[in-house]
Amino acid sequence: MTPPVRLDPKAEEPLYRQLYAQLRERILSGALARGEKIPPTRELAGQLGVNRATVAAAYELLEQEGLIRGHVGRGSFVSGAGGTMLDWEARLQGSGMEARGWGAGARINFASARPGEDLLPVDEFRACAREVLRGDLGQILRLGSPYGYGPLREWLLEQGRAEGTVREGDDVIVTSGCQQALDLLARTLLREGGAVAVEDPVYPGLRDVFARGGARAAGVAVGGEGVDLEALERLLEREELAAVAVTPNFQNPTGATMPPAARQQLLRLARAAGVAVIENDIYGRLRYEGKELPSLKQLDESRLVIQVRSVSKLALPGLRVGWVTGPREVVRRLADWKQTADLHSDHLSQAVLLRLFESGRLEAHRRRLVEAGRARLRAVLEGCARHLPEGARYTRPQGGANVWVRLPEGLDAERLLAKAEAAGVSYLPGRLFAVQRAEPNALRLSFAGLDPALIEEGLQILGRIFRREWQKTRASAEAGLATAIV
Amino acid sequence: MTPPVRLDPKAEEPLYRQLYAQLRERILSGALARGEKIPPTRELAGQLGVNRATVAAAYELLEQEGLIRGHVGRGSFVSGAGGTMLDWEARLQGSGMEARGWGAGARINFASARPGEDLLPVDEFRACAREVLRGDLGQILRLGSPYGYGPLREWLLEQGRAEGTVREGDDVIVTSGCQQALDLLARTLLREGGAVAVEDPVYPGLRDVFARGGARAAGVAVGGEGVDLEALERLLEREELAAVAVTPNFQNPTGATMPPAARQQLLRLARAAGVAVIENDIYGRLRYEGKELPSLKQLDESRLVIQVRSVSKLALPGLRVGWVTGPREVVRRLADWKQTADLHSDHLSQAVLLRLFESGRLEAHRRRLVEAGRARLRAVLEGCARHLPEGARYTRPQGGANVWVRLPEGLDAERLLAKAEAAGVSYLPGRLFAVQRAEPNALRLSFAGLDPALIEEGLQILGRIFRREWQKTRASAEAGLATAIV
Repeated sequence: MTPPVRLDPKAEEPLYRQLYAQLRERILSGALARGEKIPPTRELAGQLGVNRATVAAAYELLEQEGLIRGHVGRGSFVSGAGGTMLDWEARLQGSGMEARGWGAGARINFASARPGEDLLPVDEFRACAREVLRGDLGQILRLGSPYGYGPLREWLLEQGRAEGTVREGDDVIVTSGCQQALDLLARTLLREGGAVAVEDPVYPGLRDVFARGGARAAGVAVGGEGVDLEALERLLEREELAAVAVTPNFQNPTGATMPPAARQQLLRLARAAGVAVIENDIYGRLRYEGKELPSLKQLDESRLVIQVRSVSKLALPGLRVGWVTGPREVVRRLADWKQTADLHSDHLSQAVLLRLFESGRLEAHRRRLVEAGRARLRAVLEGCARHLPEGARYTRPQGGANVWVRLPEGLDAERLLAKAEAAGVSYLPGRLFAVQRAEPNALRLSFAGLDPALIEEGLQILGRIFRREWQKTRASAEAGLATAIV
Repeated sequence: MTPPVRLDPKAEEPLYRQLYAQLRERILSGALARGEKIPPTRELAGQLGVNRATVAAAYELLEQEGLIRGHVGRGSFVSGAGGTMLDWEARLQGSGMEARGWGAGARINFASARPGEDLLPVDEFRACAREVLRGDLGQILRLGSPYGYGPLREWLLEQGRAEGTVREGDDVIVTSGCQQALDLLARTLLREGGAVAVEDPVYPGLRDVFARGGARAAGVAVGGEGVDLEALERLLEREELAAVAVTPNFQNPTGATMPPAARQQLLRLARAAGVAVIENDIYGRLRYEGKELPSLKQLDESRLVIQVRSVSKLALPGLRVGWVTGPREVVRRLADWKQTADLHSDHLSQAVLLRLFESGRLEAHRRRLVEAGRARLRAVLEGCARHLPEGARYTRPQGGANVWVRLPEGLDAERLLAKAEAAGVSYLPGRLFAVQRAEPNALRLSFAGLDPALIEEGLQILGRIFRREWQKTRASAEAGLATAIV
């Protein structure tokens, strides 16, 4: 839809007619396909260097002819070209989740919660994959079970029994990462129109997986000690939920961790209400300070908890392997849905992961990650203390990848992002993680991918921008106050 | 739930009280967990060697105490044990698709459409994987795009353009096999309660992916030339469909292939009705006889067709990589759902597949498969001609993996399977593939996994069983007729 549209301001025919004729020709020839989006008037006017009214007039003519059509809130689309082509936009289900490439270009990128490039276990992976290739590949190339690659599943069951997550009547299924585990759980546990309690703010992939499945995500505020249990209790009294989904360790985006007593209390509430608990434990193995806490699954005496894990945060995000531990009845149904979803997960990556486990290479790598994470966590907390404006608050996680910052009220983290990016620093505005509760002054700082020096430098830059804005805001508030008084 | 329940017929306490007391103890102790299914009265009575009424009386007492509960059509489940445990069975969505391990034990297994063990490209796979491991692994270990591993996607787009499947305004997305492609299409195209036309009989994974998504699969009969276009036309007049899903080449289970004129007519019908076409083309590259036909995607001038492909039938079933080619708007929405479903497919297997393509090793392997397939196809068609009873009909595919046999009316392929399996031969009864139209006399013979000698031997055995049964059926029919006349 970009040029070569050519308008001649000296021609006799008015510009809008020239534009109309050229667009029309493109639609009829199929060069602009049915269903394709056409740019907003303002944008095209800018591109062509003409008045916005010129573009609007051309669009109007096209619309009268039925060649384009506006959809409220989605822009205008080509609808014409003979009427033989499908209007795809009209028949697609679910709203598009347009993904903006957040922070991709910034020199100091606090936007990505991924481990840094320097911490990818490339050599370990290569060594394990080579060992797998030396073995019998028949089982890997053959069609497999929806429960997962047999040897890996056995290993997970054994480990789970040893650490007390696989209990009497439990089973394990391998999934294509945690995201698929959540998607299968949504399909298994939720009725259309049902509701799930989730933390607010929360990782959007968790919020959306329930929402896109037709269920409602009911947000429960997250404090320093995890989900607000009094708010959860009131919610459980008020409505019937299909499940409560929580991330007890280093929650994304807040970094909050539930203390042992809160975990017990959550289980009591869930048991009393007869509601399932989905424990998202992807950061659990990345504790840099303090001592390890028992998981909900380990504490659960009532077969309430379904635990989701993966190795993606152990620096293997491209290896799409996760697993679910839960009551056998649930796992059986997950396997049914898994069969519908993709038959089974890729065998080669499962076999490589098993080697990573068995060889001890993943554990050695994890220890290096924890070392590095500890230094990065300290750098980010020190940087926050040193550089954030007075009145800013931030969480103090003991692991994971994220710190949640609340700027003083009145500052808008999303608006300030443009200034930060212009200065080479990126982060994610809090709005992206909101369920019901918008916090325009909040932002997420992900520190796992940056070395301490960059973290310090990035926070210096952010601090300068935030403080300057905070001074301006206060000054204009005082000026407003003065005006009001006069 | 199996013994050690011990009943003592000589004790004073009646048997039903003994049974009740022992079951009750197990439930309260948690040995029988909440949500666990308990056997039907008849089954448990058989196991314990007691009267069915004894078991029924014991169950009644347990039910009165709220320790077990019956669900219509699903049997009875433990519901008690203090009321603290979740009744999982009551809260799980979707019916379980219990998978019987069809034909797994048979010496001559016509049940599996998978390529034979001898035709797994183990060496090719190993060589390609090693080449991938010598390269830069950073991109493989990093989180990727929902559209697929960049280099593979580029390759697929280029190939698609060269062969005319990727057309103006089209795009490609990599999925975890064809099954995921179908699942994402179901989620993208279907409203709850919507309908999709599918071939009848059809591969159950295709039928179920729509049904489990809440849509209705409307079956259209398949003849020797593919789907019955007159029936499809009537269906399209009668109701609004979201899509028509067809397998134009070597359809599973019938082996039917649509001639070029039928393909054109299908597109005309779809265009007139404004309905999307899902082209499932997983067998297209496995033609053993005759010349290649243009795909629906290649013939489509109206952006109606969404094509699904994979390499699983090229002897790589464990490598879960498929791809979808279709209008950009559709692919964008598939990518949204892919992100919800599992973020993206495993990178390592995509990189290995790209090497298999680029190195020419997959193509060389495909030619060997076609050689082998030709001999197997001939063997199965000759065996059918030689051994099936008079009056049996069967399809004559030119590729793929399956022949569809219709035994003379009155024979029940499912009932006869027990006799066949006792003689060491297995197949799949037609009922498994039915959408609306049950054909009790039909069965699927999958020949791709068996060498010609075994195919001949297997058909000898089947022919003997079928002919004997057919003689018996005719004899009793004649006897019945005689009786009726007398």
